[in-house]
Amino acid sequence: MTAAPQSLATAHEALLSDRAAGIKQSAVRDVFELSLDPSLVSLAGGNPFLQLLPLEKIAQLTSRIITEQGPEALQYGSGLGTAELREQIIEVMAAEGITNVTVDDVVVTNGSQSAQDMACKVFCNPGDTVLCEDPTYVGALNTFEAYQVAARPVGTDDNGLIPDALRERIRELRAAGEHIKFLYTIPNFNNPSGITLAAERRQEIVEICREEGILILEDNPYGMLRYEGQAAPTLRSLDPENVIYMGSFSKIFAPGLRIGWAAVPTHLFRRFYLAGEAVALCPPTLNQMIISAYLNEHDWKGQITKYNDLYRSRRDAMLQALAQYLPAEVSYTRPEGGFFIWLTLPQGIDTYELLQQGVKAGVIFIPGAAFSPSGQADNKLRLAFCSVDEATIAEGVQRLSGLLSSAIEANGR
Amino acid sequence: MTAAPQSLATAHEALLSDRAAGIKQSAVRDVFELSLDPSLVSLAGGNPFLQLLPLEKIAQLTSRIITEQGPEALQYGSGLGTAELREQIIEVMAAEGITNVTVDDVVVTNGSQSAQDMACKVFCNPGDTVLCEDPTYVGALNTFEAYQVAARPVGTDDNGLIPDALRERIRELRAAGEHIKFLYTIPNFNNPSGITLAAERRQEIVEICREEGILILEDNPYGMLRYEGQAAPTLRSLDPENVIYMGSFSKIFAPGLRIGWAAVPTHLFRRFYLAGEAVALCPPTLNQMIISAYLNEHDWKGQITKYNDLYRSRRDAMLQALAQYLPAEVSYTRPEGGFFIWLTLPQGIDTYELLQQGVKAGVIFIPGAAFSPSGQADNKLRLAFCSVDEATIAEGVQRLSGLLSSAIEANGR
Repeated sequence: MTAAPQSLATAHEALLSDRAAGIKQSAVRDVFELSLDPSLVSLAGGNPFLQLLPLEKIAQLTSRIITEQGPEALQYGSGLGTAELREQIIEVMAAEGITNVTVDDVVVTNGSQSAQDMACKVFCNPGDTVLCEDPTYVGALNTFEAYQVAARPVGTDDNGLIPDALRERIRELRAAGEHIKFLYTIPNFNNPSGITLAAERRQEIVEICREEGILILEDNPYGMLRYEGQAAPTLRSLDPENVIYMGSFSKIFAPGLRIGWAAVPTHLFRRFYLAGEAVALCPPTLNQMIISAYLNEHDWKGQITKYNDLYRSRRDAMLQALAQYLPAEVSYTRPEGGFFIWLTLPQGIDTYELLQQGVKAGVIFIPGAAFSPSGQADNKLRLAFCSVDEATIAEGVQRLSGLLSSAIEANGR
Repeated sequence: MTAAPQSLATAHEALLSDRAAGIKQSAVRDVFELSLDPSLVSLAGGNPFLQLLPLEKIAQLTSRIITEQGPEALQYGSGLGTAELREQIIEVMAAEGITNVTVDDVVVTNGSQSAQDMACKVFCNPGDTVLCEDPTYVGALNTFEAYQVAARPVGTDDNGLIPDALRERIRELRAAGEHIKFLYTIPNFNNPSGITLAAERRQEIVEICREEGILILEDNPYGMLRYEGQAAPTLRSLDPENVIYMGSFSKIFAPGLRIGWAAVPTHLFRRFYLAGEAVALCPPTLNQMIISAYLNEHDWKGQITKYNDLYRSRRDAMLQALAQYLPAEVSYTRPEGGFFIWLTLPQGIDTYELLQQGVKAGVIFIPGAAFSPSGQADNKLRLAFCSVDEATIAEGVQRLSGLLSSAIEANGR
């Protein structure tokens, strides 16, 4: 490390962009380092449980790709993604009931995070507004901040976005002179709340946005990770012309390959994909070819069933432990899929402070504030049940419950 | 594909950001599809010749990583990159004479393209100015356009940037009220010109920028691909506090992994890396682990020597063919390294039109206009000698020369 003279550091401060001040570390990443301490029970990270993957098989097919097609796999590729993977993505979406996308409308992205960046690049000026759930994905909020976009929450209940609240919010924000560009939504098993948008509301949400000339950015990484109940139609399947759909292989296969995709309305496609090309030229070719071979040669739907059987047990273990140990003052969601449960504590308890105590007590989680565009989630927190086994979940929830009981007692004084 | 009703398409036009209009397809990508036609000789793409890589060995080490460390290799990682690769990057930079970077100042990126995106995100407001060579890397120009930044060329000659011209340009732009954020430069074997910044100018360039409070963004993907002559010190080695250095594994190993890095002055590091995290969370873990194992287990410097021996022969073959076939009215550069030679035709010949004729004549190249921030390179073009063999290079140059002779004749009429 080299310490710059004060004068130079000051000169550099003056070079910073207006947006630089808004680019922050995500709270999820804050606890990333912490979560590597093996003495702690981490209920923090939404890491899929990759030990279930057929590693030998993936190793073999990857080895074959490099040996037989190395000069292609290790070379630059198209900014759109490989032709084969784009075709296969059509089939993956079909498995979620999306049958109105053609291969020309699909672009492969560096995880679905980068599709959010692309959407902001194409649609958002500084000062623009996007609508979202509260709470919502912290990575999306960080992207919005990096683009100096105001993320305005829309009213939700246990069934997700409330159509009348959406209508009212649009009216109110427009009356205040705001420019609303899109609704960002995670309709299935929201991260962090676990809540799913009710099937009977979906058509209405889609119609409101179309009528109002507001795009929908549908983020659906968890859609196929459903442990009970009936899948509702994706928003994209209800309106192919006004919905940009973001999918990901991170949860149904493996996040370390950093491959996602977007399905974009035809008339917006070219602008959208060029925004990605300007950032990273093309997604990594080898990674796309690994996924293609995996989809071709492995029972990938059966693999999702395996994942789901495991995650269902872990969710059940967490719900059971919460019911058994949690103080009565704490309420929580009961997700039908995905990775997360959202806890609400009595007002006045700050879960960010609680995290510091959690580290001492041997359990970590993500404080709620990071997920809240309104900043009104200090008394909430996110638990992930995806990455540790049932016994560890029970142990973690027990430790957390002790902590919460003390905090509630102290808060009541 | 689904055709949206005109009213919706119009509504969506109104949603576009101001920057969206400036996001364009790179000319290099334009010819990417063309270059796949085997009947054409492509002197267009700067694709490294990966057939030289030890593919069996890479296949084996990759297979081992997935088998033995799969749950880590396929999982999310740190936004900084893996600890091991960051350490190794210090050694790679040392091989270029850069010894003033510590691991804490290194962030792994999605190719060095994304480091450019990060720099613009952190430093550039719409309307700001960056300085650059003319011609310069088209991908950088695209990034600048996406951030609505004016790319202002600084005078160069056969020895690269001219210090006095840099001083004068800064004075002139500031007098006109422009906010100059950084100098973007490719000091070694510029893409597309092949020109290298003379050793004796480097200290002065570095001092001017420091005195003027302008950062330097040093893009050095080709530095180790030198086929003759003496390496000059990198700008980063001359000023660790005012230079952001961008390195890449794309040319010294393989571009399809999409892994590069930035070495950032300590006091700017956190802002810089968070800008990348907001775009793509983290670089792909597997790809980083492949590179780490490759660096550990393969004679990677010997591999660069192998690459260089091949590229030197190809460069020589191209220079020889140009000397033999090219009309006397065409001048060209003689690079000591890198991938590219830059041709200057008589004024009045448009190389974009020439490309269309080239496709018919069976040879493709990149028209010069795309690389020029001043837009004054219509009569120039870029040839790449890296990806085809000597005989094919000779054939391609012969085809091109016929085309140029006709164009010059027609132009003279």
